[in-house]
Amino acid sequence: MTHPIIFDTDPGVDDAQAIAIALRHPAIELLGMTTTFGNVDVATATHNALLLAELAGREVPVAQGAAAPLVKPRHPAPAHIHGANGLGDIALPAVQGRADPRSAARFIIDTINARPGEVTLVAVGPLGNLATALQLDPTIIDKVKQVVVMGGSVREGGNVTPVAEANIFNDPHAAARVLTAGWPLTLVGLDVTHRCVLAPGHMARIAAGQDKLGEVLAGSYGFYRDFYQEMLGIDGCCPHDSCALAWLIRPELFTTARGHLTVATQGEAEGQTIFAPENRGYIEPRWSRTPLADVCLGVDGKAVVEWITETLA
Amino acid sequence: MTHPIIFDTDPGVDDAQAIAIALRHPAIELLGMTTTFGNVDVATATHNALLLAELAGREVPVAQGAAAPLVKPRHPAPAHIHGANGLGDIALPAVQGRADPRSAARFIIDTINARPGEVTLVAVGPLGNLATALQLDPTIIDKVKQVVVMGGSVREGGNVTPVAEANIFNDPHAAARVLTAGWPLTLVGLDVTHRCVLAPGHMARIAAGQDKLGEVLAGSYGFYRDFYQEMLGIDGCCPHDSCALAWLIRPELFTTARGHLTVATQGEAEGQTIFAPENRGYIEPRWSRTPLADVCLGVDGKAVVEWITETLA
Ligand SMILES: [Ca+2]
Ligand SMILES: [Ca+2]
Repeated sequence: MTHPIIFDTDPGVDDAQAIAIALRHPAIELLGMTTTFGNVDVATATHNALLLAELAGREVPVAQGAAAPLVKPRHPAPAHIHGANGLGDIALPAVQGRADPRSAARFIIDTINARPGEVTLVAVGPLGNLATALQLDPTIIDKVKQVVVMGGSVREGGNVTPVAEANIFNDPHAAARVLTAGWPLTLVGLDVTHRCVLAPGHMARIAAGQDKLGEVLAGSYGFYRDFYQEMLGIDGCCPHDSCALAWLIRPELFTTARGHLTVATQGEAEGQTIFAPENRGYIEPRWSRTPLADVCLGVDGKAVVEWITETLA
Repeated sequence: MTHPIIFDTDPGVDDAQAIAIALRHPAIELLGMTTTFGNVDVATATHNALLLAELAGREVPVAQGAAAPLVKPRHPAPAHIHGANGLGDIALPAVQGRADPRSAARFIIDTINARPGEVTLVAVGPLGNLATALQLDPTIIDKVKQVVVMGGSVREGGNVTPVAEANIFNDPHAAARVLTAGWPLTLVGLDVTHRCVLAPGHMARIAAGQDKLGEVLAGSYGFYRDFYQEMLGIDGCCPHDSCALAWLIRPELFTTARGHLTVATQGEAEGQTIFAPENRGYIEPRWSRTPLADVCLGVDGKAVVEWITETLA
């Protein structure tokens, strides 16, 4: 089975690897990329998405989207993690192509409406583009095939706050809309991405297996790796965004739970994804009122890392 | 070493067992009990505290405290868990004694001031009495020996909401005051109490080892056990409140982490204890500004259950 997907992204080192997978894996048909602020500003995100496709020798529409959150002020981009250019501050070749004239939200709506029931949305950045698409055309809820979101954390704790994961914290209002829209949705969060560690040996195999794109992936990985070494004391990186594609193609490597998601949009828990398992009673019903979604809670991390490496090597 | 303690409590089935431990363990000097609403209304809590001491043949001051939360409206008491009388709705003998004329907060202040540097506060209900004591006399922060709180959850998720534990949810504003007061504090929450399961066999040994008090503990346990069976599908109960005393007497059975606690007082995460490990950087400093505290994150659950059983058998 082939999965026609739109990849919503803020590349970003781990986004770049996931884009490489989306471009190469035979079971994925990459209909287009939509870009958002997040790891970088949105213009840089668009530049990087175009560049990565070109380095792979492919022409893929790239539509630019959100430059800022829906409601809250924007935090500066985390240049210490992804580099100021989003790809570890390595020197990058010039981009030839141009972005699609449509906004990201418009591109999402047009693409889903053109192939109702077929398109999977894979979102691995802050969720503003999906929220705006829902604002412009809520009928996509019934026309999308499924939505896979890299973001959030249920039991693992957060990475940018004690309880919040970066993509959700960067635009909690958009996340609240997207995670409770009632479309078929799977959340791939830190509970599983932190169980997947891509070591330098894997990266060497990936770099060797690809041409120009491999050089960029390997070069940017070195920068990202320094961050993990300093902050978490591990030699290797968590391939967060690739995990969303791993779930799409190899769901049997994950365990999921079904239940209700709520996103905290303010206060000390801002950006937290709160998960109420289906049929679990609480002191008040307010956590069990949102539509059901699936949340990844467990994973065979070694198998996912092997799948990523084999896909790209 | 003997620990002079004040036991702040809302008995409650698991409170009753912890009170029995506090009355019997040779390393604990029970200076008094202070009562709060929570598992039951405060008058019932006071009645039960007096009764349990009398059944053990002991005279212990009991000072009544908070009948309601500091700020939010009160939820009804959870009669389906602890019974309407707090002790599994078993028939109870009449109480002979009377409560101390002082309020719980006043009793706490007087007792700490009488023995500066010596008294440990063990709180196993909503934290209103400790918050009010801090309001009336903040100097106790420097005079208390230490504070042990059964409450909260860091990684385990909540029991009354997806993220909040009952004692903290019942009065999050009081908890926010108490957990950030800057006194030496250890949080014993669901991360460890859910790892301790007291099975019917343990309870039979406890009942056999005691006289009248054992009958009440065993009788109320049956009711509490039904709740665990129905809600969590386990045959046994988590002795939440006894775990606070287990930490006091046998800290080597626990692993703790040091860091900053924040309590969410509103929104969907209301009642959550947010933990920022010491020296971990986040996107904003706001989670790392509160005083340092210790949080129990791991436990040898079997050893704790064995300690409880041996203490009471
Ligand atoms: Ca991303
Ligand atoms: Ca209690």
